[in-house]
Amino acid sequence: MPTDLPNERALRAPGSMELDPSGEGISTDETRRLIASNKVEGTAVFDRAGDQIGTVYNFMVDKVTGQVAYVVMSFGGFLGIGESYHPLPWRALTYDTRLGGYVVDIDRDQLAGAPTHGAGEDPFADDEYGRRVDAYYKTTPSA
Amino acid sequence: MPTDLPNERALRAPGSMELDPSGEGISTDETRRLIASNKVEGTAVFDRAGDQIGTVYNFMVDKVTGQVAYVVMSFGGFLGIGESYHPLPWRALTYDTRLGGYVVDIDRDQLAGAPTHGAGEDPFADDEYGRRVDAYYKTTPSA
Repeated sequence: MPTDLPNERALRAPGSMELDPSGEGISTDETRRLIASNKVEGTAVFDRAGDQIGTVYNFMVDKVTGQVAYVVMSFGGFLGIGESYHPLPWRALTYDTRLGGYVVDIDRDQLAGAPTHGAGEDPFADDEYGRRVDAYYKTTPSA
Repeated sequence: MPTDLPNERALRAPGSMELDPSGEGISTDETRRLIASNKVEGTAVFDRAGDQIGTVYNFMVDKVTGQVAYVVMSFGGFLGIGESYHPLPWRALTYDTRLGGYVVDIDRDQLAGAPTHGAGEDPFADDEYGRRVDAYYKTTPSA
């Protein structure tokens, strides 16, 4: 896990849930429409089975339109060593208020074959990287 | 100025520029289409005269559409004391690659009368706050 996670949710055990017995959700700010950028960073990413597969490291925004194009998920590693980054098209993610994170319909095998980069690399300097991500996940280009 | 700025640009003198004599812009990642979320945070905000009026603290994203709705500019204060936060509609900002920051067509008097909140407040919990921002700057609702 990365060491600079901005919120505690990302440090929960994979697949764990934090259900509110009142049935009103995790907290009021999970039910609102807008989320702060620094809160997206660090949010858990789950597979369809509800198991945590990673954490949002950051996300890529189109400077002109303000549309979020890709979410970069960090995955594995220990104290930042060996950590890998997996960009996912924004459109492949669904926010689940019950889990308090994003759900993607991607299994670990798919993830293993997907475009990935290491810490310190800056692959979005080349637009081709985003196109590879869109092609892999068969999404229409986000930017 | 806030104490937790993620990049050095926000610490430059107000209105200063960092022009590249080659004419190719500040750096390659200023000319690309996508920007990382954690790089938006900390970016300088300038008025039309090129004077820095604040710094991007964070920004509010529509969880469903992935559209950036508001940029929260931090303004004034010292070591976080007395700092105020000014949300601006995303559509009111233009990214200027030459200045390396966002330009808004807002003067200090306009800013003084605009919706604002203090540190520790969470006004976007109420959708009404965003509507007040849109009404003040006469922008169509972003979310």
